[in-house]
Amino acid sequence: MAGDRQIRREIVQFGRMMHERGYVSAMDGNLSVRLDEDRILCTPTAMCKGMMHPQDMVIVDPNGRRLVGRRDVSSEIGMHLLIYRLRPDVHAVVHAHPVTATGFAAAGMALDKPLVSEVVIGLGSIPLARYGTPGTPELAEALEPFVPEYDAILMANHGVVTYADSLCGAYMKMETVEHFAQITLVTHILGRQEPLGNEELEKLLVVRSRYQGIRSSAARPLAMVDDSAVSPRKRMPYPER
Amino acid sequence: MAGDRQIRREIVQFGRMMHERGYVSAMDGNLSVRLDEDRILCTPTAMCKGMMHPQDMVIVDPNGRRLVGRRDVSSEIGMHLLIYRLRPDVHAVVHAHPVTATGFAAAGMALDKPLVSEVVIGLGSIPLARYGTPGTPELAEALEPFVPEYDAILMANHGVVTYADSLCGAYMKMETVEHFAQITLVTHILGRQEPLGNEELEKLLVVRSRYQGIRSSAARPLAMVDDSAVSPRKRMPYPER
Amino acid sequence: MAGDRQIRREIVQFGRMMHERGYVSAMDGNLSVRLDEDRILCTPTAMCKGMMHPQDMVIVDPNGRRLVGRRDVSSEIGMHLLIYRLRPDVHAVVHAHPVTATGFAAAGMALDKPLVSEVVIGLGSIPLARYGTPGTPELAEALEPFVPEYDAILMANHGVVTYADSLCGAYMKMETVEHFAQITLVTHILGRQEPLGNEELEKLLVVRSRYQGIRSSAARPLAMVDDSAVSPRKRMPYPER
Amino acid sequence: MAGDRQIRREIVQFGRMMHERGYVSAMDGNLSVRLDEDRILCTPTAMCKGMMHPQDMVIVDPNGRRLVGRRDVSSEIGMHLLIYRLRPDVHAVVHAHPVTATGFAAAGMALDKPLVSEVVIGLGSIPLARYGTPGTPELAEALEPFVPEYDAILMANHGVVTYADSLCGAYMKMETVEHFAQITLVTHILGRQEPLGNEELEKLLVVRSRYQGIRSSAARPLAMVDDSAVSPRKRMPYPER
Repeated sequence: MAGDRQIRREIVQFGRMMHERGYVSAMDGNLSVRLDEDRILCTPTAMCKGMMHPQDMVIVDPNGRRLVGRRDVSSEIGMHLLIYRLRPDVHAVVHAHPVTATGFAAAGMALDKPLVSEVVIGLGSIPLARYGTPGTPELAEALEPFVPEYDAILMANHGVVTYADSLCGAYMKMETVEHFAQITLVTHILGRQEPLGNEELEKLLVVRSRYQGIRSSAARPLAMVDDSAVSPRKRMPYPER
Repeated sequence: MAGDRQIRREIVQFGRMMHERGYVSAMDGNLSVRLDEDRILCTPTAMCKGMMHPQDMVIVDPNGRRLVGRRDVSSEIGMHLLIYRLRPDVHAVVHAHPVTATGFAAAGMALDKPLVSEVVIGLGSIPLARYGTPGTPELAEALEPFVPEYDAILMANHGVVTYADSLCGAYMKMETVEHFAQITLVTHILGRQEPLGNEELEKLLVVRSRYQGIRSSAARPLAMVDDSAVSPRKRMPYPER
Repeated sequence: MAGDRQIRREIVQFGRMMHERGYVSAMDGNLSVRLDEDRILCTPTAMCKGMMHPQDMVIVDPNGRRLVGRRDVSSEIGMHLLIYRLRPDVHAVVHAHPVTATGFAAAGMALDKPLVSEVVIGLGSIPLARYGTPGTPELAEALEPFVPEYDAILMANHGVVTYADSLCGAYMKMETVEHFAQITLVTHILGRQEPLGNEELEKLLVVRSRYQGIRSSAARPLAMVDDSAVSPRKRMPYPER
Repeated sequence: MAGDRQIRREIVQFGRMMHERGYVSAMDGNLSVRLDEDRILCTPTAMCKGMMHPQDMVIVDPNGRRLVGRRDVSSEIGMHLLIYRLRPDVHAVVHAHPVTATGFAAAGMALDKPLVSEVVIGLGSIPLARYGTPGTPELAEALEPFVPEYDAILMANHGVVTYADSLCGAYMKMETVEHFAQITLVTHILGRQEPLGNEELEKLLVVRSRYQGIRSSAARPLAMVDDSAVSPRKRMPYPER
C-alpha cells in the first residue's frame, strides 16, 4: 500500500463526492486507476462509494485476477479492463448513475445535441451504448464500438462511464456529463433548443485543438447537424407543449 | 445505553443524512433498529431527525410499550412493529418522505417500470400501498400485503418505508428508491421510457441470485411486463420507439 | 447582547441553513424573534443571510423603531410586526424565497391540494396572498386576512412567510412549505394528482388535534374538496399531457 | 502576493461555493477582481474552480498580458477586460454555467419576465446575448451592447456573466440569476405565469432607487410589458388568468 497510498486516498475522496452529489446511491458505481502495465487499483463490490477507506481497494491484473486486497473487486471490472485495453492513454475509469444522465439513458436518448460550447470542446458529444446485462460480457461488448472515439458514454438502462489520463480528469468528465444532461433537460422543459450550427461547430474544433488542459487521444466527434440523419422527432426547435 | 450506544449514534447519523438530503422536512420520518427479540430502539416523536442526540431515542417492546427513554416514541411505531413481526430477517426500518418518490405516491403511481438494471437487482420493483390515516391501524393494514415480498414500499399520500437486516442497509434502500424515482421522473419529462424486456429481466434474475452484498429474504418480484395486467393509463403516454 | 446571545446565534444558524438550501439567494430573506412585549430581534437589511454574525442583528420596538444595533433593520420589518400584532402566540417569523414555493407564488397558485397527510396535519393548507410592493404598507395589507388562520402564506411574485412559537418551529414550517411544493411539482410533471377525500381529511382533523409537537392557535383550515368551488382547471386528476 | 492575499482567498472561497452549488462543472468558469487601474487578478485556465489555491491566480494588465503568476490566465479574460473597460464602477466579474440559467441560454430565452419583485429590484431583467465562439473576440462583441445597461447577462449556448463593485456582489448576482431561473422554470412546469404589470413595476422603480445595499451605475431596465414589442412566441403559451 506504500506507492499507491495517495491514489487510494483520491479514490476515497472522489467516491465521497460522487455519493454526496447523488451520482451514485447505495452501493452503486465503481472507480479504478491503472497503476502500471500489470496492475489496476479498483473499488470493491458491495460497498457504498461514499463510505470507503483506502484499505478497501483491490488490485487486479489486466485479466481481472486479484493480486492484492481482502475484498472482492467490483463486478463491473470487465468494463474497466476493456477500456484500459482499447485506450492506452487512459489511466482512470469512473462509472456512476448520475440522475439526469441516467434518465436520458433510460429514455433511450444520447446527449448529442451541441447546445453548450464548453461541452463540445471538452467531450464532443456523448453517445448511448445499447443495454448489456451488468456483470456479463454483454456489457463490454455494447461499449466496445464507442470507447476508441469517445471519453464518456451513456449506458442504456444503467448509467454512465467516463475515463481520462487521471482520476481527477475522469471524475470531472462525469461532472460534465451530468451538468450537461441537466442543462439539456431544462431545454426540454422549456420546449425549445437552439443548438449550434455547423459553422460554429467548425470554429469550436479549432478552439478545441489549442485548448489548455484537455488531453485525450479520443477523436470525440462533434455532433454536427446532418439534416439527412435527423429524425423528425429530433429536429429542433421542439414543438411547444 | 451501554450496549446500544453505537446504534444510537448510527441513528443520529442517518437521521442527519436524511434531513440534509431532503428525505424529511421539519419533524417528518422515523428510524428504528431491532436490538433483540424483546426490544426495539426507535426515534422519538416531534423531533427534527436532523437534530437528534443519542439519548433522545426510545426503547419499546414488540407491542410498542415504552421500556426506556424520556420521550414519546414515534406515532408511526405501529408500522415498524408490523414489519418486524412479518419479516424475521429485518433488523432495521426507515420511514421518510423523499420528494420525488413521495410525488409518485401522491400521484397514485408505483415505481414499477424496469428502467434501470441496478434497481431491478437491488429492489425488484417498488409497489404503492393504498392510503391509511397515519397513527391509526389503517396504515399498517394498507402495508401488510406488501411487506413479505418487498423491501421498499411507496405509501399513498404519505411517503416511503424501507427495511433491511441493518440500519445502513435500510437507509441505502431509501437512497435507491429516491434515486430511482428521480431517474424515472427525468424519463417522464423527456416523454420517453425504454424499459427492459422480459428476456433481459430473466437474465437479471440470475445476476441477482449471485450478487454480493444483497441479502434479503423478500421475494422482490421483478416488474415483468405482463401486457394483460397493464391498465391503459400505465401503458401510455410514452410512444414506443 | 447578554440575554439574547443564544437567540442571535440561532438566527445566524438558521440563516446559514436557509442560504445553503437555496431558500434565499444573495441578500434575500429575513428572520425575527419576539424577545418580549417591547422588543423584536431582527436581521439587518442588505446582508446575505448565510454570512451574518450575532452582532449584526437589530432590536426594534413594536413600531419598528430601532432600539439596539448599528445596522438598519430589514425593510420587510412591517410584515413581521403585523404578524406579532395579530398573533400573540407567535414568537418568531421567517421570510424567504424557496425556489419551488416561490414558483407557485409567481404562477398565482396556492398550495392547497391535500396531497400529503403530514402537511395537512402540520399546516392545513398554504394560501396565496395577493401581491403588495415590498417595503410598503401594501405588503402587510395583502397578508392581513390570512395571518389569523394560517401559519404559512405564499406571497404572490415574492416568496413565503412562516411563523411559530419558536424560531426553530418557524424555520421548520418553511422547510415543510418548500418540501410540499416540491412534492406537488412532481405530481404536476407526472400529470396526475390523487388528493385525499373529505372523509380522509376529517380523520386527519382528529389526528391533528392530539398530535405531539404541533402547537399553534391558528385554525389552519384543511383544504376540503368543495366541488362547487373548484374551477375546471383545478379539478383532479390532471389531464394527461 | 502581500496586498492581495485576502482577495486571492476570497476567489478560492467563492470558486468553491460555485463548484459545490453546480454553477460550474469540471474546469468551467472564471472569476476576476480589478486590483487597481493597471492590474486585474484572475483565475487560471484549466483548473477546477472548486480546487484552487491562492497562489494559482494570475495578474494581468488591462490588455491581458501576464504580470504575475506561473499559470496561464483564463482563456475568457477578454470578456473580463471588456467589462472593466466599459464599466468603471465594476471591480469584480464572475462567469459560470449554472444549470438552469444556462438551460435558458441554450433554449435561446432571456430571463426577462417580471415574476419576482426582488429580482426586479436587484437586477431589472437579464438579457440574452447572442452566441460568440469562446476564446475569440466574437464573444466580447456579443456582450458589448448589454454591458453598460445590465449587471447580469445570459450568453447563448454558453452560460452567464455577472459583475459588481465587489467580488461578493458579483457572486451574489450569479446566485440571483440562477435562483430566478429556477423559479421561472417552476412556472414553466406549472404552465402559468403571473408577471407584474406596468403599474407595479413603476412602484418598484421607486423602491429600487432608495434600496439599501444595491449600488450599481447600470441602468438595469425593467422588463416592462410593452405589448407591441413582445413576439408571439413570448406572449404564449401561458394562458392569462
